[in-house]
Amino acid sequence: MAEKPARRGRAARRESRTAGTVTSAPYITRTLPTMEILSEDGLRLIERNADTLLQEIGIEFRDDPEILDLWRGAGADVREQRVRFPKGLLRRLISTAPARFTQHARNPSRNVEIGGDHTVFAPVYGPPFVRDADGGRRYGTIEDFRNFVKLAYQSPHMHHSGGTVCEPVDLPVNKRHLDMVYSHIKLSDKPFMGSVTAPERAQDSVDMAKLVFGSDFVDNNVVLVNLINANSPMLFDGTMLGALKVYARHHQACIVSPFILAGAMSPVTVAGTLAQLLAEAMAGIALTQLIRPGVPVIFGTFVSSISMQSGAPTFGTPESSLLLLGAAQLARRLNLPYRSGGSLCASKLTDAQAAYESAATLQSTLNGGVNFVLHGAGWLEGGLCSSYEKFVMDCDQLGMMAVYGNGVDLSENGQALDAIREVGPGGHFLGCAHTQSNFEQAFYRSEIADNNTVEQWELDGSHDATGRANALWKQMLASYQAPALDPAIDDALNEFMAVKKAAVPDSAY
Amino acid sequence: MAEKPARRGRAARRESRTAGTVTSAPYITRTLPTMEILSEDGLRLIERNADTLLQEIGIEFRDDPEILDLWRGAGADVREQRVRFPKGLLRRLISTAPARFTQHARNPSRNVEIGGDHTVFAPVYGPPFVRDADGGRRYGTIEDFRNFVKLAYQSPHMHHSGGTVCEPVDLPVNKRHLDMVYSHIKLSDKPFMGSVTAPERAQDSVDMAKLVFGSDFVDNNVVLVNLINANSPMLFDGTMLGALKVYARHHQACIVSPFILAGAMSPVTVAGTLAQLLAEAMAGIALTQLIRPGVPVIFGTFVSSISMQSGAPTFGTPESSLLLLGAAQLARRLNLPYRSGGSLCASKLTDAQAAYESAATLQSTLNGGVNFVLHGAGWLEGGLCSSYEKFVMDCDQLGMMAVYGNGVDLSENGQALDAIREVGPGGHFLGCAHTQSNFEQAFYRSEIADNNTVEQWELDGSHDATGRANALWKQMLASYQAPALDPAIDDALNEFMAVKKAAVPDSAY
Repeated sequence: MAEKPARRGRAARRESRTAGTVTSAPYITRTLPTMEILSEDGLRLIERNADTLLQEIGIEFRDDPEILDLWRGAGADVREQRVRFPKGLLRRLISTAPARFTQHARNPSRNVEIGGDHTVFAPVYGPPFVRDADGGRRYGTIEDFRNFVKLAYQSPHMHHSGGTVCEPVDLPVNKRHLDMVYSHIKLSDKPFMGSVTAPERAQDSVDMAKLVFGSDFVDNNVVLVNLINANSPMLFDGTMLGALKVYARHHQACIVSPFILAGAMSPVTVAGTLAQLLAEAMAGIALTQLIRPGVPVIFGTFVSSISMQSGAPTFGTPESSLLLLGAAQLARRLNLPYRSGGSLCASKLTDAQAAYESAATLQSTLNGGVNFVLHGAGWLEGGLCSSYEKFVMDCDQLGMMAVYGNGVDLSENGQALDAIREVGPGGHFLGCAHTQSNFEQAFYRSEIADNNTVEQWELDGSHDATGRANALWKQMLASYQAPALDPAIDDALNEFMAVKKAAVPDSAY
Repeated sequence: MAEKPARRGRAARRESRTAGTVTSAPYITRTLPTMEILSEDGLRLIERNADTLLQEIGIEFRDDPEILDLWRGAGADVREQRVRFPKGLLRRLISTAPARFTQHARNPSRNVEIGGDHTVFAPVYGPPFVRDADGGRRYGTIEDFRNFVKLAYQSPHMHHSGGTVCEPVDLPVNKRHLDMVYSHIKLSDKPFMGSVTAPERAQDSVDMAKLVFGSDFVDNNVVLVNLINANSPMLFDGTMLGALKVYARHHQACIVSPFILAGAMSPVTVAGTLAQLLAEAMAGIALTQLIRPGVPVIFGTFVSSISMQSGAPTFGTPESSLLLLGAAQLARRLNLPYRSGGSLCASKLTDAQAAYESAATLQSTLNGGVNFVLHGAGWLEGGLCSSYEKFVMDCDQLGMMAVYGNGVDLSENGQALDAIREVGPGGHFLGCAHTQSNFEQAFYRSEIADNNTVEQWELDGSHDATGRANALWKQMLASYQAPALDPAIDDALNEFMAVKKAAVPDSAY
């Protein structure tokens, strides 16, 4: 069919995608209703069970006497490192946390709203390895890290620069966070995450953010979201608690995330796991409010299950969908932003297994109304690998999810009665006036899918999705242009890092 | 971890799957609530628009004066072949159709419930080509047809034998339906579908069913479901109408399915397409009730969209999910069983594209509460290919959907409080009593996914999902054992076919 000269299909989209300036919605505002899998009775049952666990078993807060004192002062029952909570205490503390908040980016048009009807996509977080279709699997480097930051910046469907997009294993453990935070600031203008691997690294993240945003601004606005995992079951360790304290005191948002592979870190049942993760999340979230009432915080959930044969983590399973959807309801009842989901898979390759599993997770992510989506793109091999091909494949899926989240347009144009009147029985809609006037916006256009005839596809080289993704990410990186950064800020950041790096010897832990 | 001797993981499952006797639930009874994407107001708006289309534009019923007479007699406004419907007429007629019904199989333990909270999975329907990883793409043959019937029989996750699992292009067009129906009866004992490509072939399907089930039984019970597509927009052709009449008169269930690629056969908008498909479905469904009040009928919807660049069909898109979910709500409001969804994709290979698209469709299929799922497994290349590897991959996904549809178990065992009490903070659930006693049932076990470490996976040959699927279907076919069939019935069927085949010369149309 005829195409308007201003926009010539795939080529034009590729051009706009790979150009320095990316124009797209900074986050999703959904009109699609959320899917509710638990009834009011079911939710109350799980909440009651969580309360029982908190009262009876309690949560262990390890290696942090200060936090135990805080709990004691708040009226909790503290014995050694175990803290038990009288009914109602945690809900009372949690009530000061906001239902939604803005995370600021250095480019204000990239600010994201976290909570409510909004969904924000962030890249994969944490893999020590990377994989691409040419070089296979290898340890991640700072070069890989920068590449994933660039790709996240370039994708119109990715709202956030994320955090540990891969581990830059070529840099010393005690200093790599500096280069990671700097890469997010320098190579992208989307919002990003701070380091959590030690309290002083969290402090460095805050200090670098202050060089970008100004000290006063950072003290009263969220510029970093930070991933604080619970060591399920029912445990927070000293490292995570140390980072949580730094961020909460500086008014930066923590994602308090029970990290659960059901069957190993929780019971083999959905209802049991939901009660446990609710208890863990409530304890960690309340702690942020105890440290600084009103500080934004996200109810996080990383849930999947294990293989009962091998104990290996599994992803994209029906149980993980039920867990994600159920926890979403529990978070909404606490009036908190919710983090879960993503494009999770156990597959080693970007094959059908990876896509079945990732799509199952991602569909539930949208249906559950997840507000902050870590691991939105690039996740492979149970999170051990950041994959270049998977990254751009997943971003394409995120673009579809934005359309899906928009729900059904019931405007007069959406109803399109005149189109049906014009075409009539047995006719064809391609040429009708309504189609022509909606041509630009009609239907999401995939960057990866090949919908051509098999004959055309063979002429084009019979590539599979991995092959097309491989070409796409290379093309994107080749055309990457960094967003402008005030040279004074850039100098200040480099000076800060030089001082920090010179202060202590390199270390591997 | 230790495994009980009675069931040793993958090997035992493979054995039970590939053995002659397959034991599994004959259909899904869901407790998972359906996803509602349209509000009451939105639904009323679309229903009002459908009524307007039916009144103002009407539906064309081609090449069937008898049906035009029926409509005239019912009070519709008939001019030439166009039928316009006064408001309320179609809803009044539709009210005699049952909300659910039983489709009988020759093995009564395979009977399926269609409607209500039930979901029945059937294989891909219609592809002229087949593909496997060894031989590539080729025209389908009766041998391929038989193979897919065998695989559907063997999969514990597939509830139905389906219809045209592929076109047996090596047989004459005017006789191949006989071998197709016979293959379903002979090689499987699951329920199946009748031929719709000509009224006399529909009659042959009914007559063969009578040889199996008895004439009286067939006159009062559904033993065949039959796919009647509307030629959207707003048109039914003579062939489809001829088949519909035969089946409705014999108390067999039609799936009245608008076949819509939005942008070509309907407007480029979801709300417009929903109004049109509702109008089309209501007209066809009402016609079945006009022919035989009370005959079971299914509200069908095949919906996707086209590429606005090339006009090619696309699948697994966000728009198709919204259409599926919206139409599901409209069907529920008519109190009718609903058919849609499946494992649809445009990809030419069983690659990541195929899986992303299929999973997106399948997740919506379950979330929408689809009652009868055609194309549940095997669909490739926009429905032009039946794929052996895709068939077993998709069946694995169907198994997951059965678990997902079960929803959350809120029993005491599901709540698992004692497990959390036993394990406590920082512990591990693998060895606890609750895990041991739920070991057999805990977590769906995939037949395709590899969740092992990358090192183990490499030792196993670094196969992708396609490779594992290739091994699985071959193993299944190698161990296939036909269900017993009364030799007298078998003889009667063969005699019937011999007479029919001898009566007319072979024909290619």
